[in-house]
Amino acid sequence: MKHLAALYKKELLENVLPFWINHSKDEQHGGFFTCLDRAGNVFDTDKFMWLQGREVWMFAMLYDKVTQNPQWKEMALHGAAFMEKHGRDAQGNWYFSLAQNGQPLIQPYNIFSDCFAALGFGALYKIDPKPEYYRIAKETFDNILQRRNNPKGIYTKNVPGTRNLKNFALPMILCNLSLELEHILGSEKVNEFIPEVLEEVMNVFYQKDTGLVLENVYEDGSFSDSFEGRLINPGHAIEAMWFIMDLGVRLKDETLIQRAVKIGLDMLEYGWDKQYGGILYFMDIKNQPPQQLEWDQKLWWVHMETLVFLAKGWQLTGNEACKAWFEKVHAYTWEHFKDNEHPEWFGYLNRRGEPLLELKGGKWKGCFHVPRALYQVWQALEKAPAFAEQPVVA
Amino acid sequence: MKHLAALYKKELLENVLPFWINHSKDEQHGGFFTCLDRAGNVFDTDKFMWLQGREVWMFAMLYDKVTQNPQWKEMALHGAAFMEKHGRDAQGNWYFSLAQNGQPLIQPYNIFSDCFAALGFGALYKIDPKPEYYRIAKETFDNILQRRNNPKGIYTKNVPGTRNLKNFALPMILCNLSLELEHILGSEKVNEFIPEVLEEVMNVFYQKDTGLVLENVYEDGSFSDSFEGRLINPGHAIEAMWFIMDLGVRLKDETLIQRAVKIGLDMLEYGWDKQYGGILYFMDIKNQPPQQLEWDQKLWWVHMETLVFLAKGWQLTGNEACKAWFEKVHAYTWEHFKDNEHPEWFGYLNRRGEPLLELKGGKWKGCFHVPRALYQVWQALEKAPAFAEQPVVA
Repeated sequence: MKHLAALYKKELLENVLPFWINHSKDEQHGGFFTCLDRAGNVFDTDKFMWLQGREVWMFAMLYDKVTQNPQWKEMALHGAAFMEKHGRDAQGNWYFSLAQNGQPLIQPYNIFSDCFAALGFGALYKIDPKPEYYRIAKETFDNILQRRNNPKGIYTKNVPGTRNLKNFALPMILCNLSLELEHILGSEKVNEFIPEVLEEVMNVFYQKDTGLVLENVYEDGSFSDSFEGRLINPGHAIEAMWFIMDLGVRLKDETLIQRAVKIGLDMLEYGWDKQYGGILYFMDIKNQPPQQLEWDQKLWWVHMETLVFLAKGWQLTGNEACKAWFEKVHAYTWEHFKDNEHPEWFGYLNRRGEPLLELKGGKWKGCFHVPRALYQVWQALEKAPAFAEQPVVA
Repeated sequence: MKHLAALYKKELLENVLPFWINHSKDEQHGGFFTCLDRAGNVFDTDKFMWLQGREVWMFAMLYDKVTQNPQWKEMALHGAAFMEKHGRDAQGNWYFSLAQNGQPLIQPYNIFSDCFAALGFGALYKIDPKPEYYRIAKETFDNILQRRNNPKGIYTKNVPGTRNLKNFALPMILCNLSLELEHILGSEKVNEFIPEVLEEVMNVFYQKDTGLVLENVYEDGSFSDSFEGRLINPGHAIEAMWFIMDLGVRLKDETLIQRAVKIGLDMLEYGWDKQYGGILYFMDIKNQPPQQLEWDQKLWWVHMETLVFLAKGWQLTGNEACKAWFEKVHAYTWEHFKDNEHPEWFGYLNRRGEPLLELKGGKWKGCFHVPRALYQVWQALEKAPAFAEQPVVA
């Protein structure tokens, strides 16, 4: 495992981060290009706020946690300056995307733009404690809480009252965001907040009968027999389970960690493609045809997040199934997603594991899941044996 | 070609229509189920207005054009009654979808619901001339024209002014809709209307330099180097070209027909998958990665509409390339999309031509492209030799 930890560290520092430093900076207009082809050439200049916030977070977090590399701090500041100047509408909502020059392009219909902006500015405040960064992170977080029961606002197409569903993504991300922003929100507020999001993830979206996590349920928590209600996204639930393990460490709650490991392993077993290997993107809990035509594709983030889940599960519990699955998913991921001829990793494979798109970054893939997972797995595997001697929890 | 005409006719009358008659009628709440699995079982009960309107049109049109089968008229009336009762909001816009019982589910953000409602009620008025059907078709068509410059209305997420694009789909469908509604709108109105939509399709979205048709251009017709601006949908453009050929026949304009044949053949050559056969779903004119993850899939409607285009092209011009391509696309389509074990045809194949979803109907596939194409090809191939002796145009 030490050897593997070094492999993940090397891939992060020598392959993936240099790719983003070399190719994603827009020196002319500020902010980051994320639409980068196989070799790193820019193929589209739109600026997606999700990905701007995530890249700011990535470099600030690594500067804070790994080493005070001035280039990393400069990257974070570069992205944040562009976001601060152009990213929000008059009400402080973050646009979904901007044109290269910062002109707003797509309205703030998507609350995850706000989540990743808060994440980015929160991390930046840790390495450069300007009151402005604190204020943006705090105000954005407060705005997310205000919008959370109607996150799409005026852009929702649902007729109210007919099928009021709630979605798994927001409580799931709030599990992670509340920990990441503890220095902004204060521990007391986070302590108040945690039980509520935990309840949502572990008791409302998690289904006792099947052992699976649904993406959408009725507001009262019951099952909706509709395309949205039947939807399963194995990678999403597995990612959530490592957020829950982090909460378990924070709360020193071993039972919670054990439950998260069990749920994540069940989702992985369910989502694993028995025919071609890899983890399927979307499934239907009643085994009906999903509406997502990309259901059978293999996505980078699904596999990266699963590696984090398994490495943490192994680190924190010593569960042998985590280790065995880690080896299997590691082999699949490095064989199919890593590009041996050019830097960074492929994002989208077809069911057989062949590249579907050769891009290294796009509208949804930026400097986030690959480097975050490489960092998290490196850390978890380095700590794993120490934990075996001295458990974090219990 | 006579033998082929009989094959298409038989498939329509003995396989495809009975499938929808037997499985799509909701006897309890009215309207049509369209989410039908491989064998015809209902797997989801939502009612999508696009598909309700299309199924009404299909049965009414066949009753009008093929034979006065009372079962077909009954199907059309059954769907129309449900649409009339539940389908519109207070302003007369057609909802995108309803729950099984008719409760509105998704708001009228999509103007194509209105297009297919107008199509359906227009055809119904031909076989059952109730003033109510006339009124609904007419008012819906007028509403489409009113909304056409901002078809998504309040549901649009684009910030006005930054990148004002217009989309190919609406002018393209209006080419077809104006002919289908000539008995409602009057010939004078249609004559006024045709030059405008023809100009859009044949001179604005069609690009002289590349010979290809774009899905989105700036309002002034210029090229937008963005995901939307670079997008090519070969099947969409090919379908448009048979609408244009119908307009050519209506206008007795042989040059227009010849141009449509040339453009359609160029799009087909461009969109044909040289590696695995079949026609790709989405492409990027600059050969960059498209944002649609389903770009490499093979969709039923793309292939069905291409067969119509080729059969009409052959019928109207005797172009040998149309015949050769017809044989090639016919072979691919019947081999991969037709289900030899159960009725109706598959809708979604992966790049290799294997079924991606086994459904026969869903949120977007209903009683429309397969039966319409079987009817159109049957008619075109039956007429083809007659045309060779006595050209329709010139």
